[in-house]
Amino acid sequence: MKILALDSSGLVASVAVTENGVLTAEYTVNYKKTHSQTLLPMLQTIKEMLELDLDTIDGIAVAAGPGSFTGLRIGSATAKGLGLALDKPMIEVSTLAGLAYNLWGSDKLICPIMDARRGQVYTGVYTFKKAGEAEEKEDSEAAFAYRMETVISDRAEDIEELIERLNALGKEVIFLGDGVPVFWERIKNLSKVPCTYAPAHANRQRAAAIAALGEQYYAEGRIVTADAHQPEYLRMSQAERERLEQEQERQK
Amino acid sequence: MKILALDSSGLVASVAVTENGVLTAEYTVNYKKTHSQTLLPMLQTIKEMLELDLDTIDGIAVAAGPGSFTGLRIGSATAKGLGLALDKPMIEVSTLAGLAYNLWGSDKLICPIMDARRGQVYTGVYTFKKAGEAEEKEDSEAAFAYRMETVISDRAEDIEELIERLNALGKEVIFLGDGVPVFWERIKNLSKVPCTYAPAHANRQRAAAIAALGEQYYAEGRIVTADAHQPEYLRMSQAERERLEQEQERQK
Repeated sequence: MKILALDSSGLVASVAVTENGVLTAEYTVNYKKTHSQTLLPMLQTIKEMLELDLDTIDGIAVAAGPGSFTGLRIGSATAKGLGLALDKPMIEVSTLAGLAYNLWGSDKLICPIMDARRGQVYTGVYTFKKAGEAEEKEDSEAAFAYRMETVISDRAEDIEELIERLNALGKEVIFLGDGVPVFWERIKNLSKVPCTYAPAHANRQRAAAIAALGEQYYAEGRIVTADAHQPEYLRMSQAERERLEQEQERQK
Repeated sequence: MKILALDSSGLVASVAVTENGVLTAEYTVNYKKTHSQTLLPMLQTIKEMLELDLDTIDGIAVAAGPGSFTGLRIGSATAKGLGLALDKPMIEVSTLAGLAYNLWGSDKLICPIMDARRGQVYTGVYTFKKAGEAEEKEDSEAAFAYRMETVISDRAEDIEELIERLNALGKEVIFLGDGVPVFWERIKNLSKVPCTYAPAHANRQRAAAIAALGEQYYAEGRIVTADAHQPEYLRMSQAERERLEQEQERQK
């Protein structure tokens, strides 16, 4: 199974190809250029390096939100275009699940936080559990597998609310994402549970993590048509919010 | 602190740049091309994308072995050339430590295995411990940090010997590296401890992990001059072994 994955949900642009559980290529850039300048050229670079025939891909995994509105639109539009042109299914992966999957196998609570402005974060809480006994037995007595589970579903909320939730859960937490440098002081001050944050190679979006989850979802049949795919913004865009406020103002 | 990192120790070629704990760019290719065709063009690609002035780099981290003889020589030669030309220090990172660092924060034993042919693996065993209490307190009561520790030092050995050692340690193990597809059946059959292996985004060399460890080593002053750097092969090359055997034969 060959998966092409894209993530342009935040400042990072990332493209990856995996084949049967092994990363074939990944290209990630976290730089001030806009995704319209980076994402397709990066895919082209990988395509040439791998002499990749895009027709051999089984599915296109995309970081489907939450995240930057413009970033998500560029990622989704690119993936939809590829999906329609190549007639391949798409695999929608939560941006936050993708981030959390960077810390595969951790026994702590994994809390990705993306800066959503206005004191809010896009966040969710994830954890890794060993897969069921039955599954283990089939393979070998000794072999186990991890499955990522959702503890708190994806949402946009105030950082203080999130910390209260985590305090209530009462377990150690690892944070990651571009919200960490913004909110770390606040987290340290308000947290009643031990916490830390991930280092350079594991604390931002990676298309390889989207591809790895994409492989799993694809095998489970969790695919959509390119036509049906839509990003999950979780919040209204600034433009939509302002229009709504103006309309409400007018109706007064 | 800005670190450039290279890893061409195995089939994978990977280049990364980190700055103060955040990944700026990473490009990884796991394809049949030789590293002499990939590594420098990949660096050039990243350099152009980031408009990167190599003079602004503080140190050059390199996967310093063990691994493929040719791969290590290409990686070390490239890094030495850059280090000499730019007059920058080098940071030698064990290839196996870099692999293990992919699984940052795991509470299991991390066992990277690279296929070393002739039934052997290049391997080591690593684990993550919380950093000392004193260190925690300085930051915050709540905040903790991880430090990777070596449980079994890097070596080349028969897969059976390794599994015996791991059985003796009696703890759960996560394997990763290109030795996994080669030896997984053997591992499952002989292992007396629960074990699994890492998924696509975390099971091969990544220059970002070399860079993240490089940042840590650099801060600790663990640097060498480009002139002094040498890769750690851990075993004689086939050519050296054959010459030695011929000499021993002659002396009989």
